[in-house]
Amino acid sequence: MRGLLSALRGLTAPGHRPAARKALIAGSRCGFCGTPAYSKTQPRFGLLFDIDGVLVRGKKPIPAARKSFRKLVDSQGRFVVPVVFVTNAGNCLRQTKADQLTDILGVPITQDQVIMSHSPLRMFKKFHEKCVLVSGQGPVLEIAETLGFKNVVSIDMLRETFPLMDMVDHNRRPKLPFSPVRNLPTIEAVILFGEPIRWETNLQLIIDVLLTNGDLNSPHSSQTPHLPLLACNMDLMWMAEAQSPRFGHGTFLVCLENIYQKITGQELKYEALMGKPSELTYHYAEYLIRSQALQRQWGLPITSLYAIGDNLMTDVYGANLYSRQLEEGVARKNSKAVAKMAAATGAPAALPQEEEGVWESELALPSVTSCKSVLVCTGVYDPKSRRRVTETVFHGHRDFRFEAALVDPHHLVQDVGEAVDLIFEQEKFVPQ
Amino acid sequence: MRGLLSALRGLTAPGHRPAARKALIAGSRCGFCGTPAYSKTQPRFGLLFDIDGVLVRGKKPIPAARKSFRKLVDSQGRFVVPVVFVTNAGNCLRQTKADQLTDILGVPITQDQVIMSHSPLRMFKKFHEKCVLVSGQGPVLEIAETLGFKNVVSIDMLRETFPLMDMVDHNRRPKLPFSPVRNLPTIEAVILFGEPIRWETNLQLIIDVLLTNGDLNSPHSSQTPHLPLLACNMDLMWMAEAQSPRFGHGTFLVCLENIYQKITGQELKYEALMGKPSELTYHYAEYLIRSQALQRQWGLPITSLYAIGDNLMTDVYGANLYSRQLEEGVARKNSKAVAKMAAATGAPAALPQEEEGVWESELALPSVTSCKSVLVCTGVYDPKSRRRVTETVFHGHRDFRFEAALVDPHHLVQDVGEAVDLIFEQEKFVPQ
Repeated sequence: MRGLLSALRGLTAPGHRPAARKALIAGSRCGFCGTPAYSKTQPRFGLLFDIDGVLVRGKKPIPAARKSFRKLVDSQGRFVVPVVFVTNAGNCLRQTKADQLTDILGVPITQDQVIMSHSPLRMFKKFHEKCVLVSGQGPVLEIAETLGFKNVVSIDMLRETFPLMDMVDHNRRPKLPFSPVRNLPTIEAVILFGEPIRWETNLQLIIDVLLTNGDLNSPHSSQTPHLPLLACNMDLMWMAEAQSPRFGHGTFLVCLENIYQKITGQELKYEALMGKPSELTYHYAEYLIRSQALQRQWGLPITSLYAIGDNLMTDVYGANLYSRQLEEGVARKNSKAVAKMAAATGAPAALPQEEEGVWESELALPSVTSCKSVLVCTGVYDPKSRRRVTETVFHGHRDFRFEAALVDPHHLVQDVGEAVDLIFEQEKFVPQ
Repeated sequence: MRGLLSALRGLTAPGHRPAARKALIAGSRCGFCGTPAYSKTQPRFGLLFDIDGVLVRGKKPIPAARKSFRKLVDSQGRFVVPVVFVTNAGNCLRQTKADQLTDILGVPITQDQVIMSHSPLRMFKKFHEKCVLVSGQGPVLEIAETLGFKNVVSIDMLRETFPLMDMVDHNRRPKLPFSPVRNLPTIEAVILFGEPIRWETNLQLIIDVLLTNGDLNSPHSSQTPHLPLLACNMDLMWMAEAQSPRFGHGTFLVCLENIYQKITGQELKYEALMGKPSELTYHYAEYLIRSQALQRQWGLPITSLYAIGDNLMTDVYGANLYSRQLEEGVARKNSKAVAKMAAATGAPAALPQEEEGVWESELALPSVTSCKSVLVCTGVYDPKSRRRVTETVFHGHRDFRFEAALVDPHHLVQDVGEAVDLIFEQEKFVPQ
């Protein structure tokens, strides 16, 4: 049985004796070969980067991004600290996002460094065999398949099968007589990847699916409870090239929740909400950070995470919530969920594939003790309106409670360049 | 000076003496010529027909519609009772709707018989010279122009001028570099005609306009009060060919109101809400009904209105609310508003164009004393769910208060055929 502990042990260079391990801490030299196995330049921290508003705005790189990333890699292009990109985007595959980042940042990014909002869906295995309706943009069927779903219906498939249901656009209404209804399996769950286009179509058909218990041949009736609904990405707004923030998936959810409430008089309920600020996302980010350290044979435990983002309600709230849980030891209690996710998501190739219990126990080992939020001003966050926004308007999701302390960043900087400099300084980190 | 009173006087056949007027009531013969100036077959009532769900579902005529309308016209195709069509549709011109109805019902309908949800905008003259943003489908610029607006901006014009603002659809995002921003006048009011397509675009740009005080070059900030917002048609849902109701403009408003509330923490406010169940719509319907009676030289005053509809929250609520106001004499107190609207809307050609004060005083004369709601089951109303809907879920607009008595129809019938038969029976009306 090989586990994370044994992997950690294996990180001492071949030939190093276990007995010498203690001596390797903090810049000491190996008692056998004299090589500096660890030095002060080995990171004890990992970085979580949000993408939109931190590294790019729309398709335009933020000026400081490239320069700061040059500090994060060595002369061979390898990262000198563990880095993951935690995005609430969900409209593409991880590899696509990694390729975009490589292009934008000028350093090679792998898909194992990318966490999308939908990544946790891998662990919802009980839905993988069920017929699920997916809503979003981009290659939603491919994304769903990659996540493990076997029986997927798209909004377009629903529209084609039930042409009379989507009636808002006068020009798209079917010309009578229309072809008879084809058969589709009964939908058993609804998965919202991200904001779709033609919101009226998706809103109408999702409401129809919820009110017909998944069979659009049936008349509307309030189902209690309604079909399971899983949503990725709760961002109300995000920052693109325009000077003011643009609608995100959270805005679409506001519409869906309020239409459902208006029609049925009941509250729309989520089986799961994924993406920042959900705790699961940060657990998984920590897991990837520690995996990178293992792969690079940095034996010193990672103790701090820094989450750099532009959004008070996702990046700051999520990091602060996770940090609080780390302090309270709550995060450790949830290690089973993380272990399950790690197993379901697939560990990076260099790490051993383990039985569930082993992951659980090893991830449960204390390592990270804090997660600090670093807010940048290049995105959705407007320093001028901070006081008002944080005190009177809660831009987080309906199901997350507003708490002033959770939207108070540990650090406030101008941009990602300042963020990296500040963290290096805080950690007294000097890359080799 | 000629007014409605003088027009009423003039309705006695030429040569009839004013002194003989009293004797003409209730089937008596003219003391001079012996002709039956009035008979029991002259209507004392007028009919208000909703269209969708009563006469058509989508593009399909409801079977009973044609047959029942044959009872409403004489052998020359003239109506034997005053009839108006009161629709919350707002995506076309009155003439277009009249042509559609002529085709569907097989009897000639004129545009003077049609009340659209946007008709009252004619009286909002203070906005006619201002720069207004219009949202809706169909020929919105032409509709706005017909209503009297001189300076109109469409959502499409806004999109073209500010290409970075509409970012939800990945495929419609502008390719960089984009052309510089053109100049558009500052928007001074927003007018919502009906449900648009691509709700994400209209929702985003309307919110942008409200948060920038009409100038999309400015950054977002909460404006208190925000720009005037006028909305036509509050129908949450309507009945098309599908077996379950489809989203209407009211659903779009639910989205807009809740997004605005979520972003700003403040309530979206309307300068005006038009279309059923608003009182103004029923005032204007009464005015058109009485005008038709005058044109046909039916001298007996119209005392009853019957509003035939399929929607509890618009047709029934609106008719019952108006009926209550008639009973309480409230409607008469509001005669000035009606007079203004009549003047602004343009009286039917056969009626004299009068000074405002004259209209006011003459419309203030008591005539109609009741407005009865007749609910049909061929549309959005589902008899099975009535108890639940009326008691627990309010499908009316946010700004209208739920009251059980207002959604309780005076009559419940299967379809428009039964409605017409019932009303004829109630009125003991036998067309000649």
